[in-house]
Amino acid sequence: MAGFRTYHPGMGQNAGFAEDRIIIAGVGLIGGSIAAAVRKRSPNTEVIGIGRSPDRLRQATEIGLLTGWATQLDSRLLSGRTLAVVCLPVDMIASTVREMAELASSDVLLTDAGSVKASVCDEILQDSRAADLFIGSHPIAGGENGGFEFSDSDLFRDRVCVVTADPARDGGMRLNRLRDFWKFLGARVEFMSAEDHDHVLALTSHLPHLMAAVTTNCVGPQNLPLTGSGFRDTTRVAAGSPSLWRTIFAGNRSSVVEAVAAAQRQLNEFQLALESRDDDRVEDLLRQASECRKSLDHDASRTRNRS
Amino acid sequence: MAGFRTYHPGMGQNAGFAEDRIIIAGVGLIGGSIAAAVRKRSPNTEVIGIGRSPDRLRQATEIGLLTGWATQLDSRLLSGRTLAVVCLPVDMIASTVREMAELASSDVLLTDAGSVKASVCDEILQDSRAADLFIGSHPIAGGENGGFEFSDSDLFRDRVCVVTADPARDGGMRLNRLRDFWKFLGARVEFMSAEDHDHVLALTSHLPHLMAAVTTNCVGPQNLPLTGSGFRDTTRVAAGSPSLWRTIFAGNRSSVVEAVAAAQRQLNEFQLALESRDDDRVEDLLRQASECRKSLDHDASRTRNRS
Repeated sequence: MAGFRTYHPGMGQNAGFAEDRIIIAGVGLIGGSIAAAVRKRSPNTEVIGIGRSPDRLRQATEIGLLTGWATQLDSRLLSGRTLAVVCLPVDMIASTVREMAELASSDVLLTDAGSVKASVCDEILQDSRAADLFIGSHPIAGGENGGFEFSDSDLFRDRVCVVTADPARDGGMRLNRLRDFWKFLGARVEFMSAEDHDHVLALTSHLPHLMAAVTTNCVGPQNLPLTGSGFRDTTRVAAGSPSLWRTIFAGNRSSVVEAVAAAQRQLNEFQLALESRDDDRVEDLLRQASECRKSLDHDASRTRNRS
Repeated sequence: MAGFRTYHPGMGQNAGFAEDRIIIAGVGLIGGSIAAAVRKRSPNTEVIGIGRSPDRLRQATEIGLLTGWATQLDSRLLSGRTLAVVCLPVDMIASTVREMAELASSDVLLTDAGSVKASVCDEILQDSRAADLFIGSHPIAGGENGGFEFSDSDLFRDRVCVVTADPARDGGMRLNRLRDFWKFLGARVEFMSAEDHDHVLALTSHLPHLMAAVTTNCVGPQNLPLTGSGFRDTTRVAAGSPSLWRTIFAGNRSSVVEAVAAAQRQLNEFQLALESRDDDRVEDLLRQASECRKSLDHDASRTRNRS
């Protein structure tokens, strides 16, 4: 095992950082931001990007995001104190993890950053080698702009990163390593089952995207000149990649369908109240939303003040 | 008639400004921003706030938003080259305009800033004096934070202001004055019927608010820790005032109900496509939204570059 580096305090309350090499498969916004965060916080750690485009990987290396890159996986890279993060679209994660597991030595830790977990983890766990090396992650952070050009070394700071493991059952060195990695990047780690994660994220992430698309399609290009800041904010995410979100919805199909049904029920409540001129009920529904949404800003300002 | 002030070029491409006095009934975010915009662009114009709270009006005067204030309407104020803008909640606009019209001399111009037009204008037009003096406006700008503390003298810059009149039919000095006023504040003026306005705004403004509330209520307080920037953007407006939005929805009931029905149909399309595993169709729907939303950012950057 390669030398264990101690993380010296002073940059924050993060725990020690123990990785000699970070491998990032898919150097987009999330992969690039992980690279930026590691490069900033641990300049001596190798950060290797894996991707299809030599040009893009070379650019990412030239601007200092990566210390090296490759277009092929390689057993020499997947050895020693190495943590590999698969930051690819949801439908490419399982196969990449399994390919990595075949090449990796036993001290390598594999994880991902996908926003869908159960279907991906199920596919990974069918391979016993991958099941040994892999623990799922989902850092809840991002933006509608893809590409490493938008990388942000603080993208994960004060954000939750879900790790799909149960510390009581799956505890041990490997889980501690993964937890320490995300904490080192500034995230708060929450442990959940893949199923619970997917159920909640269908509501907190996948539904907002779908609703933004629905609102945009109802408005249509012809009415855009009469939109204001409310429309702009509410639909910003709808500009995101259709092919990426297709795979997210497909990977979390049953929970997304449930979330859409919940939205249909809420819309029906509004519609019935409006049609029956029950404006007290309309106001109740609006107040429920307003109080919930305001509590988020309140919590966010507390988090910022704390850090 | 009081002296006609000429607006000297250099601050922009706006037309001349001809008002001696601006009266603002309701000094909140919109009223305060109109005040700020006039104070900045025409420091010699009187800006009088009308409201219920002497304390609040005094504060707004102390910070320079207003040159004076009153808690009662007054025929001395409503005389001469005076433009009065009613910036009150939708359900208080018509009665306030009618009260003003009773007191106003015939060179006074009355307008409003409400986001609902047909029901309000209908009520105003039943009064022949008010019908003579009033033309409806809706500057499409705002924010989820109420109160004049959030006033922005550039809130209307490069934004559309709908004026509910037909220049071919209703043309004349009064309409020119109103158009010049909004242009002076930096807005682009669009003329539409009140009915067309309400139909479009139900989609472009009222539906986004309702969808943000629906999404927030589906997520609920218990799931807020697992929300990210997508949820934050998509639901920001849901923090807005429930009582204010109640009156907007009530004032535009039939068009809002139609907009909700359109959203139901779009949601059904997503749900059917997801349930039948027709992911090509899901991607089509997402792509339609993505292209539409991206064109808005494209247009916005063109507008900014032009100004």
